[in-house]
Amino acid sequence: MFEEQLSFLQKLSRLVRYYVLISTTAAGSGHPTSCLSATDLLVSLIFGGYFKADLDNPKDPNNDRLIFSKGHAAPLLYALYAAAGKLTEAELKTLRKMGSPLEGHPTPNFPYAEAATGSLGQGLGIGVGLALNAKLDNLNYKTYVLLGDGEMAEGSVWEAMQIASYYKLTNLVGIVDVNGYGLVGPTMLKQDLAAYVARIEAFGWEAITVDGHNLEEICEVFDSIERFSGRPVMIVAKTEKGAGINLPEVANVHGKSLTTEQLAQALQNLGEIDTTIVGQIQPPKPVSLTADTEPKTLKPVTKDYQLGELVATREAYGQGLVELASENPKVIALDADLSTSTFANRIKEVDSNRFLEMFIAEQNMVSVATGLALRGKIPFCSSFGAFLTRALDQIRMARYSQANVKFVGSHAGVSIGEDGFSQMGLEDISMFRCILDSIVLYPSDAVSTKALVKEMAKYSGIIYLRTSRPKVPVIYSTEEKFVIGGSKTLRSSKQDRLTIVAAGVTVHEALKAYEILFRDGIVVRVIDLYSVKPIDTLTLSQAAQETKAILVVEDHYSEGGVYGAVSECLYNPDLVKTRLVPIYSLAVNKLPRSGSSEELLAFVEIDTQAIVKKVNQIVDQLQ
Amino acid sequence: MFEEQLSFLQKLSRLVRYYVLISTTAAGSGHPTSCLSATDLLVSLIFGGYFKADLDNPKDPNNDRLIFSKGHAAPLLYALYAAAGKLTEAELKTLRKMGSPLEGHPTPNFPYAEAATGSLGQGLGIGVGLALNAKLDNLNYKTYVLLGDGEMAEGSVWEAMQIASYYKLTNLVGIVDVNGYGLVGPTMLKQDLAAYVARIEAFGWEAITVDGHNLEEICEVFDSIERFSGRPVMIVAKTEKGAGINLPEVANVHGKSLTTEQLAQALQNLGEIDTTIVGQIQPPKPVSLTADTEPKTLKPVTKDYQLGELVATREAYGQGLVELASENPKVIALDADLSTSTFANRIKEVDSNRFLEMFIAEQNMVSVATGLALRGKIPFCSSFGAFLTRALDQIRMARYSQANVKFVGSHAGVSIGEDGFSQMGLEDISMFRCILDSIVLYPSDAVSTKALVKEMAKYSGIIYLRTSRPKVPVIYSTEEKFVIGGSKTLRSSKQDRLTIVAAGVTVHEALKAYEILFRDGIVVRVIDLYSVKPIDTLTLSQAAQETKAILVVEDHYSEGGVYGAVSECLYNPDLVKTRLVPIYSLAVNKLPRSGSSEELLAFVEIDTQAIVKKVNQIVDQLQ
Repeated sequence: MFEEQLSFLQKLSRLVRYYVLISTTAAGSGHPTSCLSATDLLVSLIFGGYFKADLDNPKDPNNDRLIFSKGHAAPLLYALYAAAGKLTEAELKTLRKMGSPLEGHPTPNFPYAEAATGSLGQGLGIGVGLALNAKLDNLNYKTYVLLGDGEMAEGSVWEAMQIASYYKLTNLVGIVDVNGYGLVGPTMLKQDLAAYVARIEAFGWEAITVDGHNLEEICEVFDSIERFSGRPVMIVAKTEKGAGINLPEVANVHGKSLTTEQLAQALQNLGEIDTTIVGQIQPPKPVSLTADTEPKTLKPVTKDYQLGELVATREAYGQGLVELASENPKVIALDADLSTSTFANRIKEVDSNRFLEMFIAEQNMVSVATGLALRGKIPFCSSFGAFLTRALDQIRMARYSQANVKFVGSHAGVSIGEDGFSQMGLEDISMFRCILDSIVLYPSDAVSTKALVKEMAKYSGIIYLRTSRPKVPVIYSTEEKFVIGGSKTLRSSKQDRLTIVAAGVTVHEALKAYEILFRDGIVVRVIDLYSVKPIDTLTLSQAAQETKAILVVEDHYSEGGVYGAVSECLYNPDLVKTRLVPIYSLAVNKLPRSGSSEELLAFVEIDTQAIVKKVNQIVDQLQ
Repeated sequence: MFEEQLSFLQKLSRLVRYYVLISTTAAGSGHPTSCLSATDLLVSLIFGGYFKADLDNPKDPNNDRLIFSKGHAAPLLYALYAAAGKLTEAELKTLRKMGSPLEGHPTPNFPYAEAATGSLGQGLGIGVGLALNAKLDNLNYKTYVLLGDGEMAEGSVWEAMQIASYYKLTNLVGIVDVNGYGLVGPTMLKQDLAAYVARIEAFGWEAITVDGHNLEEICEVFDSIERFSGRPVMIVAKTEKGAGINLPEVANVHGKSLTTEQLAQALQNLGEIDTTIVGQIQPPKPVSLTADTEPKTLKPVTKDYQLGELVATREAYGQGLVELASENPKVIALDADLSTSTFANRIKEVDSNRFLEMFIAEQNMVSVATGLALRGKIPFCSSFGAFLTRALDQIRMARYSQANVKFVGSHAGVSIGEDGFSQMGLEDISMFRCILDSIVLYPSDAVSTKALVKEMAKYSGIIYLRTSRPKVPVIYSTEEKFVIGGSKTLRSSKQDRLTIVAAGVTVHEALKAYEILFRDGIVVRVIDLYSVKPIDTLTLSQAAQETKAILVVEDHYSEGGVYGAVSECLYNPDLVKTRLVPIYSLAVNKLPRSGSSEELLAFVEIDTQAIVKKVNQIVDQLQ
């Protein structure tokens, strides 16, 4: 390395440290010492000529991508872009302040943050998604992920590690900032670099150790990366928390900004700062579009269902997915070793490359999907609804990254039968409902399922589709339209005494109950609430207006599910203006177990007989 | 090994296979091939004299513990106990049938199942909890965990691996059944035993490979285990899915029972079965109680809070925990590198051994707590509420294991301020509410927090305590009583126009709003709903009876939280019989961001001003 280049990098390192320190002290909070340990690594990467991006076009598909998995080092991210001339000192000092794009952890409000981070251990999985996207699209960009050593304890990191080596992501580079300290004290492995190397190599990566504060050595490592072929590369850097300011009393303090006195001392120790210099970031190589990057001409796949035909909604998901994929080349599917049960595997009929096996690692599946979505793909992630609970933190963060990820949870509810409660998704509606702006769909038959799968691709954001295991009759003709926020009133008359709101498997139970009740002279309305969120307030308010009570029947625990959705809207005059009527619930209120689907629906009292009995009780009470 | 012993084990292996096959075919579903790959390993362990337990006393504290992490091998578990004379063939044939304790995956309904499993990758963490318990109590029992190779892809397994080696759990033995196949196809590593060994050893365990169908070799491995000191041991066994029945067409089929024709062929291939033999399980060694196992005489710790004193509820949790721990030696605390922020670290003041640092791995923290709880401890697991979302699957399974685990989520809501949305628990109330029979507590001040922490230890099961970051005034005198299912009506009169239901930080906002509204001549009721589940139906119905509307104000997303809890009960005549009044909501309905606590409460419109404005609007509408 040329002397002058090294000297310039050293100046930039001091400048970046200066920016980190003044911005966090101005904020009065933040994690300056965690930024300082990673500063030299990132300055070398960004300004050493390795990281290539067109800063005027942060969304350029050829830009290298950089994820701060250790999101608490956000001030370092901002300081780097200040050193690159993209933020002023005044802007830096808005750090963590209301309205500033420079938030406490990286968010999409800052255009150079690829993803929202701050819940640790998720950045590498997102990086895997970005790197897989490059492979799928034949793009040359590289993905870099900065990891903290503390977050290496998250299992999700190792899920990402194994998948990256499985898919031979040579375009992915991780950098672990081994400063040896977490929030409370030393990390599990402290600064045992050999232990990190052993784990990383055992998981199929190339591991390179480096002194994380020796700019020349770091640059040599980046120079050498091209030599490693066939494996992703992890740089394992020995660093010091609070490096460069020689203030032992703050060195290993986590999550506290320096006082003004400490800042003055730190800046004095840091040495001369030249705020006039601007670091240069290399532009990306022009993309070489090959024939392979052109979307293939796809053969459209279609299938129509007949009324009364017995089809599980999970099967119809597979059909919807394959039809959608044949129309839209951005649609891809990920699954965690259940694709023959969720029917996600059917996308392979269109293009086997558009199915990504994520093996039994649901958290990483969601992070990878987030990365793919951030580069324009429309990933559909499927598993049993029960096992998507494993990834709630990743789903939450996908929302915060504004990632367009679709979720499909099959085998929902007790209706799965013999496998028992561990496999029954009974919390999934609640879980997805409380993701901000999410959409939650729960179709009852094959026609509505297929139609809603296609609707899912039209909306950006987190959408959950709940499918069921048992075969059920098709109740809609193929011409029927289904929209997000809609519902279907299946039985309705002026004599309706009350309204049964059902969704998924309980729609069929409600229809059977309708017949029995009708024969007994009790006429009820039946609504298929296939869109749980947003909810069809118009139809529900009309039902409240025209019938004397509402009964919600659902194959889900009684909190936060369909009943929750209905009751949360019907009495809130800000959402619905209607008559206030009682709302009864039939839901899963006791511990399910193994048994047949029919036995279990009866056991938890959401089957036809339970509905008939309940309606009779309600009618008695209404009189 | 003696010839006759080997020959007897071979007979037992055939008998166990026979039981697996006939029970799954009788059930018409299940995973026989996944059982057969592990049969010889388990027969050797259980009947080779290594596993020691008093079968007449499954809860004997000295019994070795066995977790089937690959829960789909449940028929093997049942078959082993049938071979030990504890189940009849007729009982085995109730497998997966309604009412049978022999469920599709192990549950506490079967007395020899230590824990509910079936969501993969959780058994080793539970095993870590069981093994840690033995160390804490100076007991000699060993913990064995059977793992599938497919589930080794779950990051939670590696979280358990690292913690087991960190805590030097030499009393923990894992057995990986490497049959090479998952549900859909080959596992990521197929049968690359060397890759498993490298990963396992890198994570600090001893790894021993073995031919998983050679009983003599397997017994030699178990014999050798005592020689390895200082590290937990993982047996890596090369196996065949469907081993022993020589039916290639079913060998790698996952999750399907044999047809009667296949069964007949399989039994023929299996050879002679002697159903009269009974396998013997060695009794446990008598416990050697040392002085160390006697509970230490603890110095009670107490602190009283003064009215108006500024204390964060998270600090009060620490105080409550330390007081509780000084009274109850079963109370222990686990935290994931946030104990100085959640204040769980305060338990160290009583006994540093009763704090277990779980590092940044929330999923494993919950599984370890489950294991500890199953052996009688009362573990309190804490993290930021946001990060407990990471472990929803484990929390769900803890409930199914009937584990007495307590959860504390600090830094709830937008009131945390500058750190931004990644750190804000905004889904946690919803998440914990939909765990069956759970309790959800959300106190507003230090006195109520401390009181509720003590209440938590009185109830068995999943209890969640939500705490907040900011300091807030103490509003209750130390004599005040708080009960699970209770609430406090803080302001009340005959003139109340409407009722504000608040919890946690919004109680303080509601009280300030009350003063402003009172000066304007609008009198409102204010309820502190510190117990969100179970909910105080009596007080709420009275409020609905006596005031014209209810306004719920909460620092949580608008779905499934406090508003959800109130609206789900108030209109359900099965729960509450009362007048139907409108229920308004002030909750987090937009994307939060970085800012001060006060700015954010105002931004999402749940602060004093927002409440005053909303009450005025409602009053206008009511007129």
